[in-house]
Amino acid sequence: MDVVTFGESMVVFNPDSRGPLRYVHTFSKSLGGAEMNLAIALARLGHSVGWFSRVGDDEFGRFILNSVRAEGVDVSRVIIDKESYTGILFKEWYYTSNPNVYYYRRGSAASKISGDDIDENYIKRAKILHITGITPAISESAAEAVFKAVEIAKRNNVMISFDPNLRLKLWSIEKAREILLEIAKSANIVMPGLDEAKLLIGKNDCREIADYFLSLGVNLVAIKLGKEGCYLKNKNEEVYVAGYKVEKIEDTVGAGDGFDAGVLSGLLKKLTLRECGELANGVGAMATLVKGDIEGYPYWEQLMEFIGKRSKIER
Amino acid sequence: MDVVTFGESMVVFNPDSRGPLRYVHTFSKSLGGAEMNLAIALARLGHSVGWFSRVGDDEFGRFILNSVRAEGVDVSRVIIDKESYTGILFKEWYYTSNPNVYYYRRGSAASKISGDDIDENYIKRAKILHITGITPAISESAAEAVFKAVEIAKRNNVMISFDPNLRLKLWSIEKAREILLEIAKSANIVMPGLDEAKLLIGKNDCREIADYFLSLGVNLVAIKLGKEGCYLKNKNEEVYVAGYKVEKIEDTVGAGDGFDAGVLSGLLKKLTLRECGELANGVGAMATLVKGDIEGYPYWEQLMEFIGKRSKIER
Amino acid sequence: MDVVTFGESMVVFNPDSRGPLRYVHTFSKSLGGAEMNLAIALARLGHSVGWFSRVGDDEFGRFILNSVRAEGVDVSRVIIDKESYTGILFKEWYYTSNPNVYYYRRGSAASKISGDDIDENYIKRAKILHITGITPAISESAAEAVFKAVEIAKRNNVMISFDPNLRLKLWSIEKAREILLEIAKSANIVMPGLDEAKLLIGKNDCREIADYFLSLGVNLVAIKLGKEGCYLKNKNEEVYVAGYKVEKIEDTVGAGDGFDAGVLSGLLKKLTLRECGELANGVGAMATLVKGDIEGYPYWEQLMEFIGKRSKIER
Amino acid sequence: MDVVTFGESMVVFNPDSRGPLRYVHTFSKSLGGAEMNLAIALARLGHSVGWFSRVGDDEFGRFILNSVRAEGVDVSRVIIDKESYTGILFKEWYYTSNPNVYYYRRGSAASKISGDDIDENYIKRAKILHITGITPAISESAAEAVFKAVEIAKRNNVMISFDPNLRLKLWSIEKAREILLEIAKSANIVMPGLDEAKLLIGKNDCREIADYFLSLGVNLVAIKLGKEGCYLKNKNEEVYVAGYKVEKIEDTVGAGDGFDAGVLSGLLKKLTLRECGELANGVGAMATLVKGDIEGYPYWEQLMEFIGKRSKIER
Amino acid sequence: MDVVTFGESMVVFNPDSRGPLRYVHTFSKSLGGAEMNLAIALARLGHSVGWFSRVGDDEFGRFILNSVRAEGVDVSRVIIDKESYTGILFKEWYYTSNPNVYYYRRGSAASKISGDDIDENYIKRAKILHITGITPAISESAAEAVFKAVEIAKRNNVMISFDPNLRLKLWSIEKAREILLEIAKSANIVMPGLDEAKLLIGKNDCREIADYFLSLGVNLVAIKLGKEGCYLKNKNEEVYVAGYKVEKIEDTVGAGDGFDAGVLSGLLKKLTLRECGELANGVGAMATLVKGDIEGYPYWEQLMEFIGKRSKIER
Amino acid sequence: MDVVTFGESMVVFNPDSRGPLRYVHTFSKSLGGAEMNLAIALARLGHSVGWFSRVGDDEFGRFILNSVRAEGVDVSRVIIDKESYTGILFKEWYYTSNPNVYYYRRGSAASKISGDDIDENYIKRAKILHITGITPAISESAAEAVFKAVEIAKRNNVMISFDPNLRLKLWSIEKAREILLEIAKSANIVMPGLDEAKLLIGKNDCREIADYFLSLGVNLVAIKLGKEGCYLKNKNEEVYVAGYKVEKIEDTVGAGDGFDAGVLSGLLKKLTLRECGELANGVGAMATLVKGDIEGYPYWEQLMEFIGKRSKIER
Repeated sequence: MDVVTFGESMVVFNPDSRGPLRYVHTFSKSLGGAEMNLAIALARLGHSVGWFSRVGDDEFGRFILNSVRAEGVDVSRVIIDKESYTGILFKEWYYTSNPNVYYYRRGSAASKISGDDIDENYIKRAKILHITGITPAISESAAEAVFKAVEIAKRNNVMISFDPNLRLKLWSIEKAREILLEIAKSANIVMPGLDEAKLLIGKNDCREIADYFLSLGVNLVAIKLGKEGCYLKNKNEEVYVAGYKVEKIEDTVGAGDGFDAGVLSGLLKKLTLRECGELANGVGAMATLVKGDIEGYPYWEQLMEFIGKRSKIER
Repeated sequence: MDVVTFGESMVVFNPDSRGPLRYVHTFSKSLGGAEMNLAIALARLGHSVGWFSRVGDDEFGRFILNSVRAEGVDVSRVIIDKESYTGILFKEWYYTSNPNVYYYRRGSAASKISGDDIDENYIKRAKILHITGITPAISESAAEAVFKAVEIAKRNNVMISFDPNLRLKLWSIEKAREILLEIAKSANIVMPGLDEAKLLIGKNDCREIADYFLSLGVNLVAIKLGKEGCYLKNKNEEVYVAGYKVEKIEDTVGAGDGFDAGVLSGLLKKLTLRECGELANGVGAMATLVKGDIEGYPYWEQLMEFIGKRSKIER
Repeated sequence: MDVVTFGESMVVFNPDSRGPLRYVHTFSKSLGGAEMNLAIALARLGHSVGWFSRVGDDEFGRFILNSVRAEGVDVSRVIIDKESYTGILFKEWYYTSNPNVYYYRRGSAASKISGDDIDENYIKRAKILHITGITPAISESAAEAVFKAVEIAKRNNVMISFDPNLRLKLWSIEKAREILLEIAKSANIVMPGLDEAKLLIGKNDCREIADYFLSLGVNLVAIKLGKEGCYLKNKNEEVYVAGYKVEKIEDTVGAGDGFDAGVLSGLLKKLTLRECGELANGVGAMATLVKGDIEGYPYWEQLMEFIGKRSKIER
Repeated sequence: MDVVTFGESMVVFNPDSRGPLRYVHTFSKSLGGAEMNLAIALARLGHSVGWFSRVGDDEFGRFILNSVRAEGVDVSRVIIDKESYTGILFKEWYYTSNPNVYYYRRGSAASKISGDDIDENYIKRAKILHITGITPAISESAAEAVFKAVEIAKRNNVMISFDPNLRLKLWSIEKAREILLEIAKSANIVMPGLDEAKLLIGKNDCREIADYFLSLGVNLVAIKLGKEGCYLKNKNEEVYVAGYKVEKIEDTVGAGDGFDAGVLSGLLKKLTLRECGELANGVGAMATLVKGDIEGYPYWEQLMEFIGKRSKIER
Repeated sequence: MDVVTFGESMVVFNPDSRGPLRYVHTFSKSLGGAEMNLAIALARLGHSVGWFSRVGDDEFGRFILNSVRAEGVDVSRVIIDKESYTGILFKEWYYTSNPNVYYYRRGSAASKISGDDIDENYIKRAKILHITGITPAISESAAEAVFKAVEIAKRNNVMISFDPNLRLKLWSIEKAREILLEIAKSANIVMPGLDEAKLLIGKNDCREIADYFLSLGVNLVAIKLGKEGCYLKNKNEEVYVAGYKVEKIEDTVGAGDGFDAGVLSGLLKKLTLRECGELANGVGAMATLVKGDIEGYPYWEQLMEFIGKRSKIER
Repeated sequence: MDVVTFGESMVVFNPDSRGPLRYVHTFSKSLGGAEMNLAIALARLGHSVGWFSRVGDDEFGRFILNSVRAEGVDVSRVIIDKESYTGILFKEWYYTSNPNVYYYRRGSAASKISGDDIDENYIKRAKILHITGITPAISESAAEAVFKAVEIAKRNNVMISFDPNLRLKLWSIEKAREILLEIAKSANIVMPGLDEAKLLIGKNDCREIADYFLSLGVNLVAIKLGKEGCYLKNKNEEVYVAGYKVEKIEDTVGAGDGFDAGVLSGLLKKLTLRECGELANGVGAMATLVKGDIEGYPYWEQLMEFIGKRSKIER
């Protein structure tokens, strides 16, 4: 297995029109979840990936399980929780550039993830364990599971990849800072957004942010700059890679997870730092072209074409 | 005010096709809730009605509040709860004749209804207070509110109307039996379904069921028999009223609440027992003609036409 | 030209769900109009047909014009009226077996049809002129056009086919009776529904109704009996033809016009009275299988298959 | 009551795709009407508002009545007209930047508004009476009602707010100029668009336009400049307030009415001229973010957020 | 692996309304294919199943591959054919009880299935090999693949299950009879429909049909009788099992494949002949409750509930 | 007849959302085909046009035939091919600026077009014969038909208009170059896109490209420059006409065919070269405003308004 990850996945209900939800009559079902997004993005690029979570023993849980399996991601460790329900969320597109989100996830099956669900044998056979900062925020037991997985990975020389994914709806900045920086210390790769980094460590400058994490023992820092692209730094070099311009952004949700998948794919293929940044920007940009978290992630050939010439010669 | 009632209302998501929800792509938003349904059905028949509940300070709460106000129901006592969210549910139409229901209501704003939300002045000005057996099942505080409201009504000579609305998803039969029969003792009107009555008091026969409740001090018992119609009994007379046949049932949810509204409307208009049963059967049948809980409830003229000749002569 | 006819066509807005229109969010556009329906039904069966009307110089007028031309009906005499608008209607499916209809047609372009629009050369080259009782009801000038067309037909030995199509929303029964029976006197073929016949001439019995019209000088009377089929009588014989059973009626509107087309098609092909009735029942039944006035009319081969064996052997 | 207004509201049918309506298959129902739009926008900002009109005794009339009541606007003075129908319109989005509009409103219930419908007691209790130039254009009787209402307002020291809303589809520029300037003379607040002002009084320059109206006795002139924002002038000061940029305009209809609501809200809250302009620009801009006239109007907190920082920090 | 099967799967486009396709504006995508249907139905009942085919290297091929993998069916042997396209079909619901089908499958990737695609190791590890009569009809090479698979199964003592699935659109009855009876001779289980059996062997009577196949060496014959249920016979016993009544048939396509899955599931679980028939009737009936081939297949618990009591006690 | 043209038309299925088709649930039906597009665009501008092709004897063939007839194009020469099916295609909008296209057209009815289908009498009565480079690419027999038609046109002094429409999915550049330049030699008007011209004759410069074709004997060369507009040159003059800016491009497919129609319309009306270019740019730009090939083509008055002032003064 190239990558193993875990965390909550939810059914997403997208409004069929813009504006306050009370005026929206119909909603379309899709799915989302930071770790699952990354797993699917990596599978589509040709990697072997495993993802697990707890889902309810209900139609929405089955929908998530089937949808992830459809993509060729290993779901053998997903637990169907007979006692709890599957979390859902509604998006609303109104006057802010990112959608408003209404969660129905408190006490969800995924929030019951605990250390007992972490199978050492599963993790130790992976090359990379990917962790996001959402999982420790959803519950005490989920945080415990994260630390157990990190500990297993370290013990077994599995690389640890970490996206802070700061969610202030789920916990306070103080609590988040404490836990997330704790995880970062164990991580080999840290991939924050610029805004997150500011909130977490109070720095504005990419190089300073990267140096901070490198000083914690991290090997590679990849900072997401949105449309501007990204900045990557490891012990030996640093690189700024400009973003790809897209004609029409449909939905930015899932772009960050796609970005992470691009970085990990580049590392797994032993590409240069600049190439990692190009893959990451490419997957992130393509994710925004389609409504939904995962629908826009490319196959490898599509990614090559996109970051290569940006237009098909002939149809 | 002719009637005052209170209880949880939820946003309902109807699948746009039949079958397991994992295969359904789009959902349509509407709303439902036993007491609100009754309030709307009565308002449409021309009565002055007040309904209250707690709704979340979110788009779904505003949708419920606006939708009920739209119908001309007094919503001045509805509380917008800044701390809690508005409950929702998904329907699924597959192999059972009634839809499967997936609730997202635990800890909802409405479950926070408590005795403090009961305004004596509001209740005592009504002719009828309508209570359903759902409210005491959703939380301890809501049960307390029910008993406070019942006590106020009795003290102020407001008639108490009661629909047991047994929901075994919300509590055990033992607990339900204890509380619901307690409420029934204070009620002037009791309107159970035949199946409910069997579960609650172990009797199969309409007359025996009615006599049981009459012996508790109830004045009028109206038993719902589904397509078969209904059976009504008071101290002086009993009547069986055959149901109206409908060509195509779209959705049975809301029919029972419409039935209750028909009975209360007949009482408020001082009609005969048989006429009360005809109104009740009529509203109940018309409710099934349209998808959604409340959309099929008729205006008075439409009800008269429906129970009168059942077909327009000319269009 | 086998048949020429004229009269108002309107854009029809069908609700996407059943119930009161205030709860319906989306509507689908189609079109309807008794004479146009018949023209299309006949064209589909392989006849050469001309239809004309006045339509507004607007998108809905162009929609009607193009839609009729699409079917291969001659529209060379349609007048685009720069001063008036195209009539529309909304259907509502609620508690009556036929849809409720909301018209927006007063003062429409078609209501401006007048004697000046009747081209003797166009009518006299047809084998049959088809008239419905709707046209004289929409305006004085349209009534005048009908009588002019009838007069031309008689003078030129063009057969006159007449469907009373009583619409009490458009005029009183007294006025309707006077005008419609006046037209019937000039007609060679009269095709009333049983209910219409009752209202117009106060008779219940098919044979009596037929004899009444035959006594006026009519050659063939075809009485529509809905699901039951039809009764046809001419000077020499009478025949009752049982209706075809259909599994699921989608929309009865347009069935009567399809029935008329079946009778005329049989006459044009010089089939027996029974065969005319079979064609008529078949087209009428098939019209009900599809939502919309005209969508369900069959091609000749489809009609043969439908009235032949009712099920394809193999797919 | 803070504001009272009256005028025609219609059911709006929006095409589900762009282009000539003959190619559009489905339409979505919403509603619109300048005065109703303003009433709803003000109610959403927290003001007490009354709106009235005449609606038909049909489903579309009930839809309008319920929809306005839903928003918390007082509809106690709406008249259900048994004789007339409710006006409707279709929008078409093709090659002009504003939608094409097809009206079905001639002889509508609202066009029957007359002086008899004006209740002095209702108007005199309001702080502001709002009038638009559409109402006097729809019929003689409606014009009479406007002048009666204006007279009542003046007699009772109710402020008169006036939006010329020039509609050359409804009357000639000469007739419009005569009547609208007559109303303007009685108004305290006049809020024209720049193009309208040019057509009405032949001036191009904001200050000159404002001075013209001030010279008639008006106290405040607010000129709408579209995306550019607005210009406000009263006896003491003048201010130009730049517009807010929006990412994606969905529908400009209703923006002008929202602008008016912003000005009136600012006045009612005794804000500065600049603040009035900011509110007005904000409501107008937010109205364009959502398809439909009224769906995009903000609650007060949303407006504050929008004109404050334009992006939510965290979701 | 409990069962291995192979054959063409196609993307299915379902019209969103009934009637001739030229009037249908929108189509919904799903998928179908007799062997894939059976594989999914069995997987849902808890069996381990493998299915393979050739799909085009296009979006529709990926859709099929992902959709089957989603269900937990092993797709490791599916071949992505770079040279050919994925077959599709359109359904039309008009006047016949089964839908009309328009195929776009000639030269499809699946028609290129050949003996080279048959992996002995894959087949010999299965308990049952399931074959349908569609595969030998789509191409010479596919027929060759069928015979190779059958030969492997026999050599390795893998049970052979066979559904004749006569498709006269794909070949002549003479050719079909020759090939299908050839396959039947090697089969352990044969599951024809009554109509098919008549066409293939000229017999009408269930017992005679069964005896014919038993005399060929078949061990179990299961004859589908549509709504009537089924008839099963083996060397020792025969049984007729009445069908389950369903309220509303949505789509009969896929019911026969579901029936086969029920029989095989019963055999794998070593149930009685009657129980096999009950499972088969149950899966077949449930398949008809949902539009689409596979969406209505039940999980084991749902099937037990359906064939047990047919109604949920409480919701 | 002003213009006669012929070539394949297909039913087009447009995805209802952007992104890979495997995630798209619903598709909308429309139609397309270069020659048919031009025919419809010209008919809408007021010209008499004839188009023919072969269509299958199926619902999609009838849809095409009816849709073209609806527009007033003469379809009397369309052949319904009982042996073949109607070609279809699916569009996909993902990361390239033009849609991806999936064809199901191999062996379609239109690919069977042959010299036998070319009726000398039909062509010789036209002023212009329009040919595109798609027809010779679809089959040998279709190529033969093109050369026969060209020969007839030359013999009868019918002007030949030619759009190379290079489709490298249908043939190799070498083969295309050979055939297309052969046709160009006989043409009076050649209207290539700039990219096509580069691929065909290896030139980049508009004037050089034009001179090349003029040197072959062509009278007018019109080069499409996309958003930039166009370049036209004949023996006497050359002109560059800047393109019209449009706010929101919905679909570029069909724009080139509309451009051709603009040129031909200008020639038929004997307008100046510049005016021809303006018409061409205008029709091309308007085509992009509406989803679908033909829906955006304007009527003459709309085109005048669009290229005149670009905005309606008043609505």
